[in-house]
Amino acid sequence: MTSSDKLVRTQGVTAPLGFRAAGIAAGIKATGKPDLALVVNEGPECGAAGVFTRNKVKAAPVLWSQQVLTGGRLRAVILNSGGANACTGPGGFQDTHATAEELAKALSNWGTETGAGEIAVCSTGLIGDRLPMDKVIPGVTEIVHEMAGGISGGTDAAHAIMTTDTVPKEAAYHHHDKWNVGGMAKGAGMLAPSLATMLVVLTTDAVATPEQLDSALRKATSRTFDRLDVDGSCSTNDTVLLLASGASEVTPAQEDLDAAVLAVCDELAGQLMADAEGVTKRVLVTVRGAVDEDQALIGARAVARDSLVKTAIFGSDPNWGRVLAAIGIAPIDLEPDRISVSFNGNPVCVGGMGAPGAREVDLSGADIHIVIDLDLGQGEATIRTTDLSHGYVEENSAYSS
Amino acid sequence: MTSSDKLVRTQGVTAPLGFRAAGIAAGIKATGKPDLALVVNEGPECGAAGVFTRNKVKAAPVLWSQQVLTGGRLRAVILNSGGANACTGPGGFQDTHATAEELAKALSNWGTETGAGEIAVCSTGLIGDRLPMDKVIPGVTEIVHEMAGGISGGTDAAHAIMTTDTVPKEAAYHHHDKWNVGGMAKGAGMLAPSLATMLVVLTTDAVATPEQLDSALRKATSRTFDRLDVDGSCSTNDTVLLLASGASEVTPAQEDLDAAVLAVCDELAGQLMADAEGVTKRVLVTVRGAVDEDQALIGARAVARDSLVKTAIFGSDPNWGRVLAAIGIAPIDLEPDRISVSFNGNPVCVGGMGAPGAREVDLSGADIHIVIDLDLGQGEATIRTTDLSHGYVEENSAYSS
Repeated sequence: MTSSDKLVRTQGVTAPLGFRAAGIAAGIKATGKPDLALVVNEGPECGAAGVFTRNKVKAAPVLWSQQVLTGGRLRAVILNSGGANACTGPGGFQDTHATAEELAKALSNWGTETGAGEIAVCSTGLIGDRLPMDKVIPGVTEIVHEMAGGISGGTDAAHAIMTTDTVPKEAAYHHHDKWNVGGMAKGAGMLAPSLATMLVVLTTDAVATPEQLDSALRKATSRTFDRLDVDGSCSTNDTVLLLASGASEVTPAQEDLDAAVLAVCDELAGQLMADAEGVTKRVLVTVRGAVDEDQALIGARAVARDSLVKTAIFGSDPNWGRVLAAIGIAPIDLEPDRISVSFNGNPVCVGGMGAPGAREVDLSGADIHIVIDLDLGQGEATIRTTDLSHGYVEENSAYSS
Repeated sequence: MTSSDKLVRTQGVTAPLGFRAAGIAAGIKATGKPDLALVVNEGPECGAAGVFTRNKVKAAPVLWSQQVLTGGRLRAVILNSGGANACTGPGGFQDTHATAEELAKALSNWGTETGAGEIAVCSTGLIGDRLPMDKVIPGVTEIVHEMAGGISGGTDAAHAIMTTDTVPKEAAYHHHDKWNVGGMAKGAGMLAPSLATMLVVLTTDAVATPEQLDSALRKATSRTFDRLDVDGSCSTNDTVLLLASGASEVTPAQEDLDAAVLAVCDELAGQLMADAEGVTKRVLVTVRGAVDEDQALIGARAVARDSLVKTAIFGSDPNWGRVLAAIGIAPIDLEPDRISVSFNGNPVCVGGMGAPGAREVDLSGADIHIVIDLDLGQGEATIRTTDLSHGYVEENSAYSS
């Protein structure tokens, strides 16, 4: 990111040229809140890439969108936040298919000739219930009419994909060569009450092949969304999509595209962490000195998922012994006597033993950075997580019905 | 267990012949509560076996006791509940060694000729602080004088190893052939505020070699304590010991010894679950129909550790979608469309889809049994766990200092 590039949080998927978006309340949510979002790529190109949940139990829209993406093209993404459409069997898959068909018809009527095979579908909400298709189908026609150009359409869409999120998440990167990457996101891990899923749609007006998009997206997600771990739970519906319109007529170098996509993903991942379920502390867990990056990542994730570490942080308790116990059970190389730990830069454990003043370190602030140095090699990785609070328990123990 | 065998909860380590035990307040805990326990094997034999934490960060007493156990003999076990003596470096190891030496001297003075190499040491409490040896050493002499025969000594010892436990845990198995197995336990996982550890001491008056004891102990722990998973956190101090006095002069068949040790371990594991941190529900997670038992165990553990499943159960919420999401990310073979789930015998998911009435299943009781049938093979395993409650967060977010 050079000095003349710019990353902003006030624009999203419609910041790049060639995209329209909308968000409406279609009546899928009983609350009447916005629940249907649309992002349309008006071209001239429509290359695309996607990354999906690793959960073996995949929602119908994930199965559908994975299949669509094999073609490397996407004309539009339709997203609903009123139900996950997961564990709904063949009927649920037919609902997804019907939604894509309906959108293809509506977009074609509106002047953008499209087939269902160029339309991705995303869903988020309670697992296990069929969607109210009597709301979804009319909603699809309505939202095509609501599509707006400019930034407001993107913001409406970012609102319409929210479940337990308290704020919409948007980011846009403006490259000095006059091409852009935009994005929106919702969720973090599995959200209460069981409103599954992280959904992210990224857009760019750069000229790029599906292969280039795929490469940029995988590199970015592996370092951002894949390293965000609120509660260790991987949803049935996680989806990250990247659509390219080519409307800027600029063909960036791969490394510039990589950097811009990474910057937007990193910003969105930070916003997801900050708005996670019941969060009172934003926590970074860094493992360095591991034998390689993979082991550093496994170690950082083990600490970030440890309930005892997370509750200690909720209590602003510099209980470093729990960090040692958590890293000690991770399936990685380590020598207990070489481990050092710091909290927000204050050494609490040096060479496997407590440091002077370790029990008095002040963790009352909202940002906590735990650094664990294994002193074995050069591997380093950081996981973003949160504390485990009463708020998390409260939100996630509420009735699903 | 034949009809004339008997399992009781009112006796512990002194139920078998040939054992004495005691528990005292030595001043290691600032609260003045009992904090030092002793179990002595008066023989005639002193074969023993032990199972220890898999955590790579091992407390000094674990390192010590593992070394002692290579000899296959134990004359005594000294346990303190006022500090884990973990992450305390060479000084902490010397403290453990000095404790064993002191006990060997006191027992020899008392008439039981013993060396430090026949004494196991167990510790539990906050990780990272040195023990107050000015309390421990006089305590060791005092407790030898306090040793009582009969059942009360065992119960005193069971009290003295408690940290955040609310009740002592004891069990004894009386075989109709006139030999016995007794045991005591404390803790479950890592306990707040960071009072690490599950400690278990088992005794038997059967005649058995160290190899037979080791075999019985490993088989029993793999099916009981290893399948108790309150918060996924593995302590630095976990220790399970089995001491045999041979005082009954009965040599049981291996399968009978196995069964008796398993029965006592199973009873103690159940008591640990029932008294775990912040528990409001006792939860069994069974996976059946896996391709083998190992995969069933991995799957059951994944569900038992899932924060969203555990908070849903705290809320008495039959949110079966979270169970599907949790099992779906486990690294085991499964076909989503073949998975069925029941809560307390009520089908909530059949063939990967919701069952009629699933949202209305009543989970308001204190005992919840989740059964997940993968419909692939004969593998089956059960994990004991608890819900994730406000109480758990409260206890574990309290200051360590």
